Amino acid sequence: MDDAPSGEHPFFRRRAALRAAMDAAGIDALLLRETSDIRWLCAFDDVFDDERAHALLVRADRVALHTDSRYSQAVREAAARVGNAVEVSDERMSVSAWVAREAAGAAALGIEDVLPLREYRALAAALPDGGAVSDAVSPRLVETSGMAIGLRSVKDRSELVRLRAAQAVTDAAFAHIVRFMRPGLTERAVQVELEHFMRCHGGEGLAFSSIVATGPNGASPHAIPGDARLEAGQCVVLDFGARALGYCSDMTRMVFLGQPSDSMRRAYAALRRANETVERRLRVGMTGAEAYELAEGILAEEGFAGRMGHGLGHGVGIDIHEEPVLSPRNRSPLAAGSVVTVEPGIYLPGEFGMRLEDTGVLTDDGYEVFGCSPHEMVII
Amino acid sequence: MDDAPSGEHPFFRRRAALRAAMDAAGIDALLLRETSDIRWLCAFDDVFDDERAHALLVRADRVALHTDSRYSQAVREAAARVGNAVEVSDERMSVSAWVAREAAGAAALGIEDVLPLREYRALAAALPDGGAVSDAVSPRLVETSGMAIGLRSVKDRSELVRLRAAQAVTDAAFAHIVRFMRPGLTERAVQVELEHFMRCHGGEGLAFSSIVATGPNGASPHAIPGDARLEAGQCVVLDFGARALGYCSDMTRMVFLGQPSDSMRRAYAALRRANETVERRLRVGMTGAEAYELAEGILAEEGFAGRMGHGLGHGVGIDIHEEPVLSPRNRSPLAAGSVVTVEPGIYLPGEFGMRLEDTGVLTDDGYEVFGCSPHEMVII
Repeated sequence: MDDAPSGEHPFFRRRAALRAAMDAAGIDALLLRETSDIRWLCAFDDVFDDERAHALLVRADRVALHTDSRYSQAVREAAARVGNAVEVSDERMSVSAWVAREAAGAAALGIEDVLPLREYRALAAALPDGGAVSDAVSPRLVETSGMAIGLRSVKDRSELVRLRAAQAVTDAAFAHIVRFMRPGLTERAVQVELEHFMRCHGGEGLAFSSIVATGPNGASPHAIPGDARLEAGQCVVLDFGARALGYCSDMTRMVFLGQPSDSMRRAYAALRRANETVERRLRVGMTGAEAYELAEGILAEEGFAGRMGHGLGHGVGIDIHEEPVLSPRNRSPLAAGSVVTVEPGIYLPGEFGMRLEDTGVLTDDGYEVFGCSPHEMVII
Repeated sequence: MDDAPSGEHPFFRRRAALRAAMDAAGIDALLLRETSDIRWLCAFDDVFDDERAHALLVRADRVALHTDSRYSQAVREAAARVGNAVEVSDERMSVSAWVAREAAGAAALGIEDVLPLREYRALAAALPDGGAVSDAVSPRLVETSGMAIGLRSVKDRSELVRLRAAQAVTDAAFAHIVRFMRPGLTERAVQVELEHFMRCHGGEGLAFSSIVATGPNGASPHAIPGDARLEAGQCVVLDFGARALGYCSDMTRMVFLGQPSDSMRRAYAALRRANETVERRLRVGMTGAEAYELAEGILAEEGFAGRMGHGLGHGVGIDIHEEPVLSPRNRSPLAAGSVVTVEPGIYLPGEFGMRLEDTGVLTDDGYEVFGCSPHEMVII
């Protein structure tokens, strides 16, 4: 989380971090094809959309970006702002032919193993011996796993500013939607209002399609908002987030339509205790699995063993789901600068579902929540 | 484009089509991992979102769907509506272990070559001999290319209804935004209004993030809407589409802010001639490359050679970019039932850009445009 000298474009520090990782992996060239990885490395604003239309080749002495004519003007302008430290090409040639040419002279060309099999086959075919060995001209292929997304898990200052901006939009939207909601509205109408507010108040878009799930629909963690109407006595799951300055936010809050039943109160108290205990005790060096088990243990103590069913949290950044994850499968210690959600849930099929989610950053002092939306029961 | 007996769920016909393709490829099991492919095959509504959280295994005698606990309730309800012809599992196990178990006894397991390399390696490791040979228990791996997306390129009646519904929302939004636009507004404000209208009037979401690009910004085909203000004398590119009932629409129109200059009039006339000539002459059996060359030839005749820079069109369906494409690389004849955009463009850096795009279906009688937004110059 220590950061670049003020005023230096984030590109330079990220490039240095990636080159250090490449050195450690024994590769002198790396191909990136995922737009989120390219966006992160280049730190170009207002250039990339969701299309997978770009390729980036990182070598010890240069960084080359291949794009198509639809993007080349915007990419060239952005590259000029970093002193053309990124070379731009929009030649009409296949990515594999371009990579083979640009990687000439390298000994080992890293390819991230999220590469589609088809692109892997095409690239291997473009290299002598299928990329199995390096010769004087061509590199051998080395499969890397999560090199860029691993580096992206630790956020720099420029990213934290953006993540906080996205969260501020999300908090404002929650305050707004609580005043808007009332029995009789459909889930869908609440979703449309919520998303429009985010777009009108600083969100350049949505981090993901919002979940608004009332009554028993809330028991399905990824329910799709529909024509179900909010009814008095129900509780509503709102899971949503804005995208601002290229970065996502993610928050879940419950809204209770009139006085909650005793079983809702018990569930919410358990959920809140699980959330707040984890948020208070999350530390650098703890593993994702330990954080998950802490929450599961509390839910079990409160009588809700096995009612969560999903992981406790995930990284958030340019993508809504990044590393690290707070789940049984993550046995690695969490690093300072990681931005993760904490989102325990309780799902009671046929009755209701609940989730309470914040996003925050892990610092040397603990876990700092970005948002300011309180955890008290919201009863309208 | 002939269709199922009225009332039959589209799942059954799509499954039969996929099995025929599998037979032709000599495989008796096929793994699908792309959510769009799974959504198409199952034809389940209100179940899937953008997450890549599912795996589908198609065999001669059964179809099995693996998902996680967040989706299992919704998936089971949808499966019940097709008489449980899809077996649902949400066991906590890796996809590769699940596939290895479910494909037991098959001789040849097809994997689409969009599969990430990492998943391919994991699956090969879960099979004897790395999936290189089949034995009494386990299949060998066979890489297939575009089997599901190829079948998806020809739309059935249920899909055409949905595509037309999405287009109707898009047409209505254009009529609305023309009344809303005026000099002084930012591109971003126009985008927000346009998208909110689509969401409020039948769009369950957006097919893609809308493009609103005024003046010289329009010369960048994938410009991102920003703080630039609409000024009298400019023309504005509006490229947008709603998503309705799970299907996308895609349309581009120009709006002129006051009387257009002579150069704008010349460019628009050329563009319109290219668009309308292709739409009139597009035929089953013509190749995508021929359609592209027809448009390029007209643009060249009109003095705009080489000013397009992108393909002429693409398939539209569950995804905004599907097959077939109208571009030099598509030498295959177009089939009846294909839904494609026709979108010639002219880009003059530093001056302006223009694009005129419709979406429609190729029938035995020609190309039928879905929308009703006219091609006449819109001057406000």
